[in-house]
Amino acid sequence: MTNLTAALSAADAQFEQSLERLFGLLRIQSISTDPAYAPECRRAGQWLVDELTELGFEASLRDTTGHPMVVAHHPGATPDAPHFLFYGHYDVQPVDPLNLWTEPPFEPAIKEIEPGRKAITGRGSSDDKGQLMTFVEACRAWKQASGVLPCRITILFEGEEESGSPSLKPFLEANAEELKADCALVCDTGMWDAETPAIAVALRGLVGEEVTITAADRDLHSGLFGGAAANPLHILSKILADLHDDTGRVTLEGFYDGVEETPAQILASWESLGRTAEDFLGEVGLSVPSGEKGRSVLELTWARPTAEVNGMWGGYTGEGFKTVIAAKASAKVSFRLVGKQDPAQVRAAFRAHVESRLPADCTVSYAPHGGSPAIQLPFDSPVVTKVRAALTDEWPKPAVMIGMGGSIPIVGDFQTYLGLQSVLCGFGRTDDRIHSPNEKYDLASFAGGIRSWVRILDGLSTR
Amino acid sequence: MTNLTAALSAADAQFEQSLERLFGLLRIQSISTDPAYAPECRRAGQWLVDELTELGFEASLRDTTGHPMVVAHHPGATPDAPHFLFYGHYDVQPVDPLNLWTEPPFEPAIKEIEPGRKAITGRGSSDDKGQLMTFVEACRAWKQASGVLPCRITILFEGEEESGSPSLKPFLEANAEELKADCALVCDTGMWDAETPAIAVALRGLVGEEVTITAADRDLHSGLFGGAAANPLHILSKILADLHDDTGRVTLEGFYDGVEETPAQILASWESLGRTAEDFLGEVGLSVPSGEKGRSVLELTWARPTAEVNGMWGGYTGEGFKTVIAAKASAKVSFRLVGKQDPAQVRAAFRAHVESRLPADCTVSYAPHGGSPAIQLPFDSPVVTKVRAALTDEWPKPAVMIGMGGSIPIVGDFQTYLGLQSVLCGFGRTDDRIHSPNEKYDLASFAGGIRSWVRILDGLSTR
Repeated sequence: MTNLTAALSAADAQFEQSLERLFGLLRIQSISTDPAYAPECRRAGQWLVDELTELGFEASLRDTTGHPMVVAHHPGATPDAPHFLFYGHYDVQPVDPLNLWTEPPFEPAIKEIEPGRKAITGRGSSDDKGQLMTFVEACRAWKQASGVLPCRITILFEGEEESGSPSLKPFLEANAEELKADCALVCDTGMWDAETPAIAVALRGLVGEEVTITAADRDLHSGLFGGAAANPLHILSKILADLHDDTGRVTLEGFYDGVEETPAQILASWESLGRTAEDFLGEVGLSVPSGEKGRSVLELTWARPTAEVNGMWGGYTGEGFKTVIAAKASAKVSFRLVGKQDPAQVRAAFRAHVESRLPADCTVSYAPHGGSPAIQLPFDSPVVTKVRAALTDEWPKPAVMIGMGGSIPIVGDFQTYLGLQSVLCGFGRTDDRIHSPNEKYDLASFAGGIRSWVRILDGLSTR
Repeated sequence: MTNLTAALSAADAQFEQSLERLFGLLRIQSISTDPAYAPECRRAGQWLVDELTELGFEASLRDTTGHPMVVAHHPGATPDAPHFLFYGHYDVQPVDPLNLWTEPPFEPAIKEIEPGRKAITGRGSSDDKGQLMTFVEACRAWKQASGVLPCRITILFEGEEESGSPSLKPFLEANAEELKADCALVCDTGMWDAETPAIAVALRGLVGEEVTITAADRDLHSGLFGGAAANPLHILSKILADLHDDTGRVTLEGFYDGVEETPAQILASWESLGRTAEDFLGEVGLSVPSGEKGRSVLELTWARPTAEVNGMWGGYTGEGFKTVIAAKASAKVSFRLVGKQDPAQVRAAFRAHVESRLPADCTVSYAPHGGSPAIQLPFDSPVVTKVRAALTDEWPKPAVMIGMGGSIPIVGDFQTYLGLQSVLCGFGRTDDRIHSPNEKYDLASFAGGIRSWVRILDGLSTR
């Protein structure tokens, strides 16, 4: 029996205990955005420190101005074993509306969600406690089977991922030497489908902007002023309608600077995944792709930039009718970025777009919200190749390289502050309902995730 | 001393008591749109019945399916005296946001709003309790001075004007015989300026429509779906932006059917009023006329039709940011009508405009709200001529004939159900803040309004 086979057997043998330990973590109400739960966040961090210490890590809870970080170190089997930084987060999203949960969010349980398919229920079961515990339990399996870890491991668990990570950058900056490794491993993403593991290699960036148009110095009666006074809802509608042309392209000046066409070979590999627009949109009650014409839904959501209005409001929005011309109208607009698009340039182009449509007697104000460039990770580095092979060994179908529509800011922060590339692989499923009521994590995700990391640690142990 | 002189003296002599009585009515919180205030509405109606009974009217409170009507009759000085129906409303608008009021809305007071200019403060002080009380107090002055009213008077006060008058049409229909008169007098409008009384002869009509666009069957994450899934805020923005072309004209098919150019002579008379765009818009912090190019602000607001967005909402509108693609987006849109524009045709054209811009997998729903055509009243009937002369006698400058941007549906209802023309004159000022916090009514409006009606009753007493 090889070391790997022994570690896989150990993982399988202790799976019930692994679940019990995960349940222990899931019972802690570590909602980071609500100050009332700060003691619970600290408790979750301490729980992990205790767990890792027991596994032979040199682990500690590190205070920040927000919730504490967990940092832990473990040597590899040999002094020159490759060194990886594993990242996850122990905080969770709020649980409201509570009445929509069919099981209590902090009382984890196993539920058969369809015939033959069981899942762990509860807030954080998928995002990200279940995911990070796949790695911890894989380390435990290695320790039990052979007393060592194949690689040198540093672990960083943060407690503010769901509330904007305010302490993360300063912490990385202050502890860069301690946290450096050969490569980072991030477990906060999903599978392609039940049988196909995935490595995310293209992450869209994000620019957020809140814009408020002010016209008159008070709300006006539309009978008295309608037809003569500027209406900020008209102005804002025009601004937002003009963000796209008839082909679905974003019209901002220079918006596509730095956007490259996706190589045909990658498009072909996405094509082979067989995800049609009807499948993708049908799940949410739609059928007609919006956005740029002539591109597949995977290309649109993984490799093309967007402009989206996320919220808009102004005037009278209550029951009945009020013939008012509002003084102000506001919108929250976000841009998903790809390639080398520059967040600052996109923001400036949007503001120029707004101001070129603003009547001389109206004013505009902005509340910027975030700005991160897209991230393109290597498809074919040695580490990626090894992770891909390990995943392919574990699951029924070969691992695929996918894009991601959303951003994972930690990946950029690791590049910036630690000079580290990341490999993103995780075992979530698209129906995990992260951030929503009735979050779950498939039992198969948890078991297969542990076994996957057992294999990945083996694969990465050689240079 | 003529009867008129005696009645004017009586009005002046009892002005302090007139104010006290108005304050009594203003203290009643008769907000018609909020069911919680239904008892207060009834109390205001009963207060008026008591007041009118004391003045010698045969007055009663008439139940409806909503708030009650006040109906009162008084004979004229001679059996064949001309007969007029006076209309006002005792209900008021809600008072929120309460924190913007500098004086409590239901504790009326006298306030010096600028040196030498005093006003009555409180909700309803102008719209319409202050205005209707000018007529009641004028009747009292006549009774005190000569024991009779020069004309036969029927009074109709409704309590639902601020909530769409649901009971009015059935009530007029059921009581048409009782309410018929030679002409209606409506006191719910304003002066041209502090020195110039006005008779409104052109009233724009109104069509209201709430529109809701539904795309996906749930809110979506813009990272996962952005660029592929329809965004109802984009669709709605486009629909609303397309309501006007670059010259400010409304683009709906057939919208200008029935709209005639205003005769040059009337435009010239409006021109002579000397109201510039800078004056008109400057009062509310604006300077650039919006809407159709090449027309004066008076023509735009009195004689041209409009499309206005009165409210719009969708997606995330709270603090911070949420990268959501909303399932739904809504807007409240209203159209001001002139000439012979048909409300039903305008509504249909708007719906066609919406539906022609709706993607195949999205749906739309509507909540219609009101529909009344424009009304053109005579400039030169004998009654109008007499009212104009009486107003000109009372105020420093001659009365002017004006248009009105808003609609006063009662005028159309009186035509339809009672076969009556209306004369609209009132004493509000453009800065009365009706429907807004800090509503007021100039003391000069109240005093001059009472004296004006004393004169009008005299002028109308001869056939």
